[in-house]
Amino acid sequence: MTRTVVESRTKTVTIGFDEPFCVIGERINPTGRKKLAAELEAGDFSTVEKDALEQVACGAMVLDVNAGVVYNSNPNPNETEPPLMRKMIELVQGLVDVPLCIDSSVPGALEAGLAAAEGRPLLNSVTGEEERLELVLPLVKKYNVPVVAISNDDTGISEDPDVRFAVARKIVERAADYGIPAHDIVVDPLVMPVGAMATAGRQVFTLVRRLRDELGVNTTCGASNISFGLPHRHGINAAFLPMAIGAGMTSAIMNPVRPVEMEAIRAANFLMNHDDNGYEWIKFSRILDAVDAGESYPEASKASMAAGGQRGGRRRRRAG
Amino acid sequence: MTRTVVESRTKTVTIGFDEPFCVIGERINPTGRKKLAAELEAGDFSTVEKDALEQVACGAMVLDVNAGVVYNSNPNPNETEPPLMRKMIELVQGLVDVPLCIDSSVPGALEAGLAAAEGRPLLNSVTGEEERLELVLPLVKKYNVPVVAISNDDTGISEDPDVRFAVARKIVERAADYGIPAHDIVVDPLVMPVGAMATAGRQVFTLVRRLRDELGVNTTCGASNISFGLPHRHGINAAFLPMAIGAGMTSAIMNPVRPVEMEAIRAANFLMNHDDNGYEWIKFSRILDAVDAGESYPEASKASMAAGGQRGGRRRRRAG
Repeated sequence: MTRTVVESRTKTVTIGFDEPFCVIGERINPTGRKKLAAELEAGDFSTVEKDALEQVACGAMVLDVNAGVVYNSNPNPNETEPPLMRKMIELVQGLVDVPLCIDSSVPGALEAGLAAAEGRPLLNSVTGEEERLELVLPLVKKYNVPVVAISNDDTGISEDPDVRFAVARKIVERAADYGIPAHDIVVDPLVMPVGAMATAGRQVFTLVRRLRDELGVNTTCGASNISFGLPHRHGINAAFLPMAIGAGMTSAIMNPVRPVEMEAIRAANFLMNHDDNGYEWIKFSRILDAVDAGESYPEASKASMAAGGQRGGRRRRRAG
Repeated sequence: MTRTVVESRTKTVTIGFDEPFCVIGERINPTGRKKLAAELEAGDFSTVEKDALEQVACGAMVLDVNAGVVYNSNPNPNETEPPLMRKMIELVQGLVDVPLCIDSSVPGALEAGLAAAEGRPLLNSVTGEEERLELVLPLVKKYNVPVVAISNDDTGISEDPDVRFAVARKIVERAADYGIPAHDIVVDPLVMPVGAMATAGRQVFTLVRRLRDELGVNTTCGASNISFGLPHRHGINAAFLPMAIGAGMTSAIMNPVRPVEMEAIRAANFLMNHDDNGYEWIKFSRILDAVDAGESYPEASKASMAAGGQRGGRRRRRAG
């Protein structure tokens, strides 16, 4: 049984075929968020704090932390990212108790994050590129952490799913050379936009099944890629996630502050028999009740969390 | 390749592994609808007319017609159902051009429906019960129509999916004895409520895959059973349908006048590469736009249909 164990100082999250789907919150990332980038350069971490608390309240089980900001004052990320990553990791793990996912293309930032993170963070990411394999796998081994493996290599991203599978296998084999077990590798088979490639959905479902059956690895993806460029894309995402879960996908890097996608995941967990007695569904349905009554989804989620997830139910019991 | 062909006088619908999911509209059924039952006894067919038009506008590809009303004036359905079925079939096929599904537990009503229906209707249903097999399969053969086969037998409905699979196989084998091919049998593996049976979802996904791979049959289900008794059940349905479609389910008997479920099915079709260029998704997204703007889903769907499905888009092209 493939179990990828990720830990904070106090909390363990297991990614696995018989576990609820692992939602990795993607929001703490300045890429494409100019305002956040400017804030970080100015030493203002208020958005990071808000994103950390909000994502956990909304159901993120792991938080991705990316410090990939290009400073106006210093355009060299090899100098700026490592100290920023360290600062952000320390800040976030001081605020919330979920495990972290250290996300950078800068090896120095990965190592700074690994040194700062408590517990057993997930490293994001290695690819099949030779240079990247040689830089990242020794870190994975040294710190004994699991790693996200993205299925592209020095030739780029193949549109052929068989090639992407072969890249994943290469990474798993190379990791084995370092003594890293397959259960510590979480493969991202790469999700293409279905609006641009009609076979994008089926490719992922087939790849996830093969990765699970043939390589015994857990999987993840940037889920919202599937709907890139399409109208009503949350509707596409909300069908894609249950279908991917049914095919065996075990995690996604995504925005948890979206009720439509989170509802689809909660329902899929229930339907996969990964929600004992529907406890999580019932709890979530009370948040949906509050949203229907006009509350915002993050506010309703925070209130539910503050009430120990017993929102409504607990209050009624107290009154009785 | 398993293709179940259903036809009206003018329209062919193919249920198959490489076809868009076939939505069979369930609304024309007085069971549990007291008002409709009273109307039918009084000879008032206005609700039937409304349900027929609305369901087709909302995306039903086949309409189920059930005349199972118990008259106050005559409690014997063997006398009342056959003429009512005939009347309803004639009415509905005069109004809409989709194929019909003749739904009754009364053999005389099935035969009356078969005699009245134009084209190649779907018969609903045979079970594994000996008496039912002997009554229904000769009709299936005589009229050369496809049939829904429900996986229960004289011992009732088994909670064991292996038993339900065995019942399905028995029906397929028995049909073969009559010269009825497997591609004319659409198996309903029976969906249990996940709130009562935690394995209900997984059972269906596994059964659908086996029915497809081992018996080569298409499948259907009463989709909303999965969420029976649960809060926010449309959210459960909207995850269940894409997961079932991903597992190979090819049709469902359901209420198409529900935007949440229909959005999930449209998205799943796109993700299964059963929606060329996302044409149907784009068309549907314009209906969602109208719903977001305050229109009701049936009204927006009817307007889209009246505009040849080009609502918005066509208007813009005309203006250009």
